[in-house]
Amino acid sequence: MAYEGCEVDNAMDVVVIGAGIAGLVAARALVRGGTEVAVLEARDRVGGRLLNGELPGGAPIEVGGQWVGPGQDHVLALIDELGLRTFPTHIAGRHIAEIGVARSEYRGRIPKLNPLALADVAQAQWRLDRLARRVAAAEPWRADHAEDLDAQTFATWLRRAAHTAGGRSFFQLITEAVFSAEPEDLSALWAAFYVGAAGGLDALINTAGGAQQDRVVGGSQTIALALAEELGDRVVLGAAVTDIEWEASGVRIVAGGTTVRARRAVIAVPPPLAARIRFTPGLPGDRDQLVQRMPMGRVIKINVVYDEPFWRRAGLSGQANSDQRPLGTVFDNTPLEGSPGVLVGFLEGRHADIGARLDLADRRAQVIDDLAGYFGPQARHPIAYIERDWAEEEFSRGCYGAFTTPGTLTRFGPALRTPVGPLHWAGTETATRWVGYMDGAAESGHRAAREIASALVRSRA
Amino acid sequence: MAYEGCEVDNAMDVVVIGAGIAGLVAARALVRGGTEVAVLEARDRVGGRLLNGELPGGAPIEVGGQWVGPGQDHVLALIDELGLRTFPTHIAGRHIAEIGVARSEYRGRIPKLNPLALADVAQAQWRLDRLARRVAAAEPWRADHAEDLDAQTFATWLRRAAHTAGGRSFFQLITEAVFSAEPEDLSALWAAFYVGAAGGLDALINTAGGAQQDRVVGGSQTIALALAEELGDRVVLGAAVTDIEWEASGVRIVAGGTTVRARRAVIAVPPPLAARIRFTPGLPGDRDQLVQRMPMGRVIKINVVYDEPFWRRAGLSGQANSDQRPLGTVFDNTPLEGSPGVLVGFLEGRHADIGARLDLADRRAQVIDDLAGYFGPQARHPIAYIERDWAEEEFSRGCYGAFTTPGTLTRFGPALRTPVGPLHWAGTETATRWVGYMDGAAESGHRAAREIASALVRSRA
Repeated sequence: MAYEGCEVDNAMDVVVIGAGIAGLVAARALVRGGTEVAVLEARDRVGGRLLNGELPGGAPIEVGGQWVGPGQDHVLALIDELGLRTFPTHIAGRHIAEIGVARSEYRGRIPKLNPLALADVAQAQWRLDRLARRVAAAEPWRADHAEDLDAQTFATWLRRAAHTAGGRSFFQLITEAVFSAEPEDLSALWAAFYVGAAGGLDALINTAGGAQQDRVVGGSQTIALALAEELGDRVVLGAAVTDIEWEASGVRIVAGGTTVRARRAVIAVPPPLAARIRFTPGLPGDRDQLVQRMPMGRVIKINVVYDEPFWRRAGLSGQANSDQRPLGTVFDNTPLEGSPGVLVGFLEGRHADIGARLDLADRRAQVIDDLAGYFGPQARHPIAYIERDWAEEEFSRGCYGAFTTPGTLTRFGPALRTPVGPLHWAGTETATRWVGYMDGAAESGHRAAREIASALVRSRA
Repeated sequence: MAYEGCEVDNAMDVVVIGAGIAGLVAARALVRGGTEVAVLEARDRVGGRLLNGELPGGAPIEVGGQWVGPGQDHVLALIDELGLRTFPTHIAGRHIAEIGVARSEYRGRIPKLNPLALADVAQAQWRLDRLARRVAAAEPWRADHAEDLDAQTFATWLRRAAHTAGGRSFFQLITEAVFSAEPEDLSALWAAFYVGAAGGLDALINTAGGAQQDRVVGGSQTIALALAEELGDRVVLGAAVTDIEWEASGVRIVAGGTTVRARRAVIAVPPPLAARIRFTPGLPGDRDQLVQRMPMGRVIKINVVYDEPFWRRAGLSGQANSDQRPLGTVFDNTPLEGSPGVLVGFLEGRHADIGARLDLADRRAQVIDDLAGYFGPQARHPIAYIERDWAEEEFSRGCYGAFTTPGTLTRFGPALRTPVGPLHWAGTETATRWVGYMDGAAESGHRAAREIASALVRSRA
């Protein structure tokens, strides 16, 4: 990889902006097709919302996106091609749930709720899954009743779909866990689209059989690192793109001291960050309005490290959920080797707002309190505390992904993927399956590369 | 006024970013208090969302914000201080309404609807006004039921508040006219806050007695021009701010070739544009999340010019509203002198989306068709057609103002005005009265100037 200030070929075929999975996959596909590519990455590292931190002793630990699961064909194929391996998230033992009721422990998929709440969750999930199947993932804005759904928040939809306090509480918790947003933030159409794009709610929320099933050996960032390795000097780090001048025949891209010309560009950064690049001429109103209306979710991800995974000896899996604690979702995040013990927890949505306003010591104390509440007093003695507030990161400004606010998909949805002259859009938010996941990012990179390949063929014909 | 490239004092007290009313009022107040100020304006003109166009013959015509009304004490005082004058919007004659029913003509404030719809509008308006009074304008996020209101779109609220097709249609039309957004775009809390900040729905929608009552002689941009004249060389045009480095003791601001240092800054640009400035260090998560979630409304404003105001001879006022035509709101916009005749119409919200996708000839034909539908075949013979698509403007990216999407005010509302170190926020969206209007802009400029004056006094003490 090259660093800012290096000479960059001044007449590329394609410049890719953003070295997350979407951009790197697009770049690799184009390079393999014989296209000259440069990838400009604002940070001093690749991976975007994927990042390996370091455990005491030096082993990697995921501080960004981390899981893959069945049905995520694009990312699983990519992992396989790159010679990487996955291993199952640890789930043996009893899970902990505090949802609408005091603590319960359970095995398998279904937390213990009171029977009325459980029936309520089941019927509301049935309704949500039915709705999600009807929202075509490629063009959700064309679904039956799309306008009705997009006119309301997911909170409004849930109020009609779930009738018990426990049922509503369950859905609030999973909205936070899946979107790192609150039900009131999201368009109901976006929520249905997102669930449909994953193949149903179970696929999103399950560990075994779902989106949290597996982890990547060496940490998920290794996917991006391996892609970047293959691309070599084509990846330029520390190159924050501020200006893009464009016309039908090409682009001129400014990133600090570096200027690159190319025939086409892939913009593979989250929508609200794409809004912060200055385009000349300005982008069409539809595209600009869209990116004004796709905010990022908010999450603080915290890995708490112990000498050993002490909870396993107590018969606990390390998986815990609560609608009564800020740290509402916890998993065992111990490395494959089994040591040190790691619990990963998330402050999501409103809990991230509140958590971010605390200073580190207070936030840490609160997180440890919650872990002790779940797993007992041994949780009070970690050997390391590793947190990442993604909303504070200049080049993410939130996680897990962007969502659309009400009215946005039906008014501006087509602008998500429609190229503007030589500008193509990638990133997990532009995917049609597993939107918000690594898999959607990979899909979008392939799609952008195909768009460009056929555009370059046409222009050569 | 100075232009980019001029020498700018490198050690100002305060830099103001944005030469709309908010920024100019703040700058003037600070200068009058003995503070050194520079105003950096991205465009080659002052006024922001206020702009004078030119009629055939050279007289000014408002192509941006234009009206003032009773209760707008800040802007009325400003007009008075600057030696400017207002004149009444022309309203003599019969107005036209096509709301839920075929065309009707009426005088006074209340359009003809069917009696059931009229009763429905009355009761829903009563509910909205009552709600609006309960939402304290300074801190709407603290209102009773603020979370409930912020969890739903204004469309959801309206579905419960209005029960007839005609009533709902009326509220959709006035939402478009007031917010240049659709009811589904807005948080219901924002809608209630906005109505309350104006003192009630009648104040927002009325011509005589309301926000459309008066126009400024010479065009509304003269307010900004007069303020800029007083500030002289302190206003730097063509200086698009891209970078702000800040620490407790000061700021360093980069705008093209110009760099300015100051002790404090006022950022007086619309929230989604403030999001496009690169801050180092990055702003706190709360502030960044807020500006990700405050999109601009969308409007194309069209002045159509005729030899004379022919509709007046037919006994028509020139005021027309329709829920059946894209050009849903029309006023007589003839200059004080009475010639040429001008009708001003608005493509708002979804109508702006659709209008912007047409080419100029098709859009013009559609607008003229609508005017002919309202005012007869004479409307087919304009002598000029003057339009402005504010969502296409790089340094507005929409009009009339920004709004908050659901969940935003309750989660991030305090970040609207809370200074961040030496950074102060102004602009009509940060006001507590007449948010979205020139009056709110003026209020916010005074408030930012007061914040800075007391901070500078404290730091000198």
